[in-house]
Amino acid sequence: MEKLLYTGKAKQMWSTDNPQILRVVYLNQATALNGKKKDKIEGKAVLNNAISTLIFQYLNQVGIPTHYLEQISPTEELVKKVEIIPLEMVTRNIAAGHFASRYGVKEGRSFDQPVEEMYYKSDKLDDPFMNASQAKALGLVTQEELDVMWNLSRQVNFILKRLFAQAKLTLVDFKLEFGRLADGPIVLADEFSPDNCRLWDMETANHMDKDVYRRDLGDLVSVYQEVYRRLQTVLEK
Amino acid sequence: MEKLLYTGKAKQMWSTDNPQILRVVYLNQATALNGKKKDKIEGKAVLNNAISTLIFQYLNQVGIPTHYLEQISPTEELVKKVEIIPLEMVTRNIAAGHFASRYGVKEGRSFDQPVEEMYYKSDKLDDPFMNASQAKALGLVTQEELDVMWNLSRQVNFILKRLFAQAKLTLVDFKLEFGRLADGPIVLADEFSPDNCRLWDMETANHMDKDVYRRDLGDLVSVYQEVYRRLQTVLEK
Ligand SMILES: Nc1ncnc2c1ncn2[C@@H]1O[C@H](COP(=O)(O)OP(=O)(O)OP(=O)(O)O)[C@@H](O)[C@H]1O
Ligand SMILES: Nc1ncnc2c1ncn2[C@@H]1O[C@H](COP(=O)(O)OP(=O)(O)OP(=O)(O)O)[C@@H](O)[C@H]1O
Ligand SMILES: [Mg+2]
Ligand SMILES: [Mg+2]
Repeated sequence: MEKLLYTGKAKQMWSTDNPQILRVVYLNQATALNGKKKDKIEGKAVLNNAISTLIFQYLNQVGIPTHYLEQISPTEELVKKVEIIPLEMVTRNIAAGHFASRYGVKEGRSFDQPVEEMYYKSDKLDDPFMNASQAKALGLVTQEELDVMWNLSRQVNFILKRLFAQAKLTLVDFKLEFGRLADGPIVLADEFSPDNCRLWDMETANHMDKDVYRRDLGDLVSVYQEVYRRLQTVLEK
Repeated sequence: MEKLLYTGKAKQMWSTDNPQILRVVYLNQATALNGKKKDKIEGKAVLNNAISTLIFQYLNQVGIPTHYLEQISPTEELVKKVEIIPLEMVTRNIAAGHFASRYGVKEGRSFDQPVEEMYYKSDKLDDPFMNASQAKALGLVTQEELDVMWNLSRQVNFILKRLFAQAKLTLVDFKLEFGRLADGPIVLADEFSPDNCRLWDMETANHMDKDVYRRDLGDLVSVYQEVYRRLQTVLEK
């Protein structure tokens, strides 16, 4: 008997016959400003699932441990169930968004070394910024787990920067979530889509990610469609 | 010719005949909420100077490098001029204040390992929280300097926790500022007083620090007077 375990802002998580496996249902929904802005967007679920599938399959192939198992319909996938570590792990190659406004830096400034940030996943507390010392003191994670997660984040950055560059997209920043499998090891979980990264078109400098929605810059679905098309072309080669 | 270089929320910094030395004038002023709450408090300048003098003399004695040279009047001291590193280095032994509210933790919870946080000193940006990766990417500080500052912070914590305990006060948390001397090395600068630490009375659990002002708990001057009296008694032995 399948049970709805969680309805998030963009996905539902369902149990399956196998206690180690979840079914993810992508929703036609976009949110911003921690849920204060919210809209139904026809066609979004299919694209998020399609793009995330391409990326997770690619990451699995090159040896990054992830929760991804298989896509089972245009809006659904199966994943390994994990205990999510309640930290959003953000990597920034170029200053944008909150980083730019919070620290008085111009959007577009690039860093010698990627900036690495964490946010505590807590809707009640509004996902506050958190550092390693705090996360450990609150018992959310150990130093060893942080080392594993940052190590994987750096590998993902290296691999995806190159992949997106082939698609003529600059990977500006991205957010990852990790979880613990039942038998211990940490794997990359959640999704990787233009909902949780920033992609700038290399030729036009156009936003090709959720900033189109956040900043009301045009039609989100056609932008996600274009990202999907380019990734697919690159990956077919 | 002495020149007024800077008027802060609690002190003035004056140049002296010696380009390497500044004269600090403590002011009868208390502020909270990043300057939104502000009051003139008769007798505060003398007490901040007196307490900070006791602490810096003690830290100098036990070998911590500081900017402190000498007290020259009840409200004035001479210090070595430094280039301030624009980071407030916070150490927390027990959850209180912003930490407790931001992360949904009860005030009074103690940590196995002290929590270490940094804030970017920028009135314009409202002193935002910052992590090491960000501070380095913005060119504010090097990893080597951060190592020196946290190393000194840990020593200060160890030394002052013991000192305050002898005065029957719990050192809950504190904020340090560091600066670069003209010839390079990093020293502890600014002040150490109940304005920038939290002290809880070991017997009554009363607040013996600026929270008395922030939270309107009573007469600040008599509380600072008591902290001074206890420290002096302990240090005379
Ligand atoms: N493999 C997995 N096993 C268990 N939970 C997962 C897995 N992958 C992702 N999740 C969690 O499932 C939820 C996905 O839903 P969605 O992305 O819509 O959430 P959200 O609105 O972003 O909310 P949240 O703030 O909880 O992330 C998230 O809480 C995510 O952490
Ligand atoms: N040895 C030193 N050399 C140079 N500057 C110093 C030294 N010690 C402290 N300072 C700086 O002098 C100022 C002290 O004034 P005060 O404590 O009133 O400032 P403030 O209102 O807290 O403002 P700020 O936000 O600049 O710290 C601070 O900016 C502090 O960083
Ligand atoms: Mg999510
Ligand atoms: Mg100050």
